[in-house]
Amino acid sequence: MTTRPGIAAPSEPVMSCHLTFRSVGLFGFGAFGRLIATHLTPHLPCLVHDPALPDGANLPAGLSIASQAEAAGCDLVILAMPVAGIAEACRAIAPHLRPGAVVADVGSVKMTPAAIMQATLPGHVALIGTHPLFGPQSARHGIAGHKIALCPLRGRAHLPVAAFLRARLGLRVILTTPEAHDREAATVQGLTHLIAQAMNRMGPLPDRMTTASFDLLKQAVEMVRHDPPGVLAAIESANPFAPRVREEFLGLIEGLDRAYAGRD
Amino acid sequence: MTTRPGIAAPSEPVMSCHLTFRSVGLFGFGAFGRLIATHLTPHLPCLVHDPALPDGANLPAGLSIASQAEAAGCDLVILAMPVAGIAEACRAIAPHLRPGAVVADVGSVKMTPAAIMQATLPGHVALIGTHPLFGPQSARHGIAGHKIALCPLRGRAHLPVAAFLRARLGLRVILTTPEAHDREAATVQGLTHLIAQAMNRMGPLPDRMTTASFDLLKQAVEMVRHDPPGVLAAIESANPFAPRVREEFLGLIEGLDRAYAGRD
Repeated sequence: MTTRPGIAAPSEPVMSCHLTFRSVGLFGFGAFGRLIATHLTPHLPCLVHDPALPDGANLPAGLSIASQAEAAGCDLVILAMPVAGIAEACRAIAPHLRPGAVVADVGSVKMTPAAIMQATLPGHVALIGTHPLFGPQSARHGIAGHKIALCPLRGRAHLPVAAFLRARLGLRVILTTPEAHDREAATVQGLTHLIAQAMNRMGPLPDRMTTASFDLLKQAVEMVRHDPPGVLAAIESANPFAPRVREEFLGLIEGLDRAYAGRD
Repeated sequence: MTTRPGIAAPSEPVMSCHLTFRSVGLFGFGAFGRLIATHLTPHLPCLVHDPALPDGANLPAGLSIASQAEAAGCDLVILAMPVAGIAEACRAIAPHLRPGAVVADVGSVKMTPAAIMQATLPGHVALIGTHPLFGPQSARHGIAGHKIALCPLRGRAHLPVAAFLRARLGLRVILTTPEAHDREAATVQGLTHLIAQAMNRMGPLPDRMTTASFDLLKQAVEMVRHDPPGVLAAIESANPFAPRVREEFLGLIEGLDRAYAGRD
């Protein structure tokens, strides 16, 4: 990786930091790790580390299995594991990170992983929190046009990373802070998953006498119903703003039910 | 209207009843009445009766204001008013209905209007319950391809009516009974409107860091948020199956909230 600290710029729109990534170390090869790999390998070789990967697993071109130390020694290190695993991963990779490397997580909440990375990872690496606002379902026809939230945490590596995400992957980059992200995601994801989980549990939903609005609701549910438990846990339990969104929604549903039943 | 009772057929797929409607009497000229008029006037002249219409109101071509007796004297009489107004409308039009005429309602529930029409309207008119599963929002680009539920209540006029709806208006006709309709609509519409009403009351919803599934949820809400109070009342209070759907959803949301908060 080449850093050019001499090129400093007065404001964000001007590129103030140029990075050349030669390799990506990808920690975690679940559904989301695989989605990342699919879209990065056309641009960069990926070293994958996931203890769950069987020895000698046959990976697609551009991907290779690596040890923890090898993957942590890349220019860009991506933590693609459940939020609950971030702390342990940070402790494990910390000794192997190279000065000037960039570490990014991809979790559905941003405050907790940011705090962990800032506390655990050495000062000589740059840190970025990211939240790709799409998943294997919603991005099954490609990721171009989808959104990604980007939280600069340490250093200015978010600038060339944002430029790469926009220009090469066609993503819509939203620069934000961990707190602003979590506040908005508490409604966006917290509410969507709450409704989806409840509707899933209602059994087979009607598919004959449906309206356009109910069909949209079912599409929304379908898009998130296969999300793994770790994603749900992050969205509903690791987001500090999620409980009050659920509480507000629950109170409103109760009030409406009373009103419709004629008890208000 | 010409009825040809001589042409009887053994089973439904064969047209067993031929009706020629020369005029439609449309009772109610709210948002839905206007939507009906827009799509019927290319095929049939419409006589509109709505006490809320000002004297001398200027209606589009094919529509004319009529007295209660004139509108009730048409070959096809459509009741396009809130479910709560059906009983009074039936009592008012009963003396003016012609033998062989067809009366149809368009309410969001079917059991109550069916019972009222069957009890109030003379035996010499045919009765059909209909529920167009679209509205001014979802059908703003046209009604072709949308669904309509059709409940035969008295006589066989539903056969030519279904054929007209399919062939001329491009609708997908679902033949059903009032009870089967209300049972399915309790989830389809009851749940959609419950969620939409709650989300509306949460104030401005996030529009920046949104996911595809949340955007679908917002589209669903947007599609029904302008429905008039009469529609909501029918869906949530006049449908006998709606309370238990709300109860189940509420219980599931409460359970999920407890689980996410770690209290389960």
